[in-house]
Amino acid sequence: MVCPFCAGSVERSVFSESENFRAIYNIAPIFPGHSLIIPKEHIVSILDLGNGQLGELILFTRQTTNLLMKVFRADGFNWSVQDRETAGQTLAHLHLHIVLRYTNDLPDPGDWYPRIQQNYGEILDSASREKLDDREMQKIVRKLREAAR
Amino acid sequence: MVCPFCAGSVERSVFSESENFRAIYNIAPIFPGHSLIIPKEHIVSILDLGNGQLGELILFTRQTTNLLMKVFRADGFNWSVQDRETAGQTLAHLHLHIVLRYTNDLPDPGDWYPRIQQNYGEILDSASREKLDDREMQKIVRKLREAAR
Repeated sequence: MVCPFCAGSVERSVFSESENFRAIYNIAPIFPGHSLIIPKEHIVSILDLGNGQLGELILFTRQTTNLLMKVFRADGFNWSVQDRETAGQTLAHLHLHIVLRYTNDLPDPGDWYPRIQQNYGEILDSASREKLDDREMQKIVRKLREAAR
Repeated sequence: MVCPFCAGSVERSVFSESENFRAIYNIAPIFPGHSLIIPKEHIVSILDLGNGQLGELILFTRQTTNLLMKVFRADGFNWSVQDRETAGQTLAHLHLHIVLRYTNDLPDPGDWYPRIQQNYGEILDSASREKLDDREMQKIVRKLREAAR
């Protein structure tokens, strides 16, 4: 299987980038604004980044979070990394989740995480009904690209 | 209520520090090695750190993760930040979870997160039975302090 974060089709989801990282909109967002930061190179673990790249990753993640919070008018966010399969890393290409949160989006604010795991099924399963259609996706990506300028 | 991460008693859990951050062992670890990175100052949101501090945070987090992985012989890890109450931030003092993971520690590797939320009850509820006793805690903290030298 081709890594979905290395496939050419990922370009359609990219709304911002730094030297070594891309911000992509999640094809099956658990809440509006749910995005991923991924390295351009196929790197599995955050432990394998150089110090300079790690610094770049966190600054770019925060910049992207600020952008998303503004565009989607969110009230908070979760950041999450799963490193190695044993930790729940379903796709072997480093990705940091930015999950935007909204007041009262869930009865218990802590319940966002199980949705992330369901989400992998939706990314990998092309038959899923929960995916954004391409038109919707392109509308959001265009809006974010403009905001990122 | 005094912030538990500002109270003097937190010192007993600190096993490593950088200029502006501390690594503390979790009083009620969900798996062996579960630790937190916290700023020395009472800062609520990761968005309020300066760029230099943010870079320091991520490098110190990775250094601490490498240390923990080695001492506890773990196979993977989760990093997680909840930013703002609406995102499940139960303690209003920035903290990044480092959750060490072990092959087959859970039937589904993705099921670690609900345990984090339960964990807050254990930190805040002094009557909890799940807490490490002080002797156990000191033994682990001593070991980590030595490994961090």
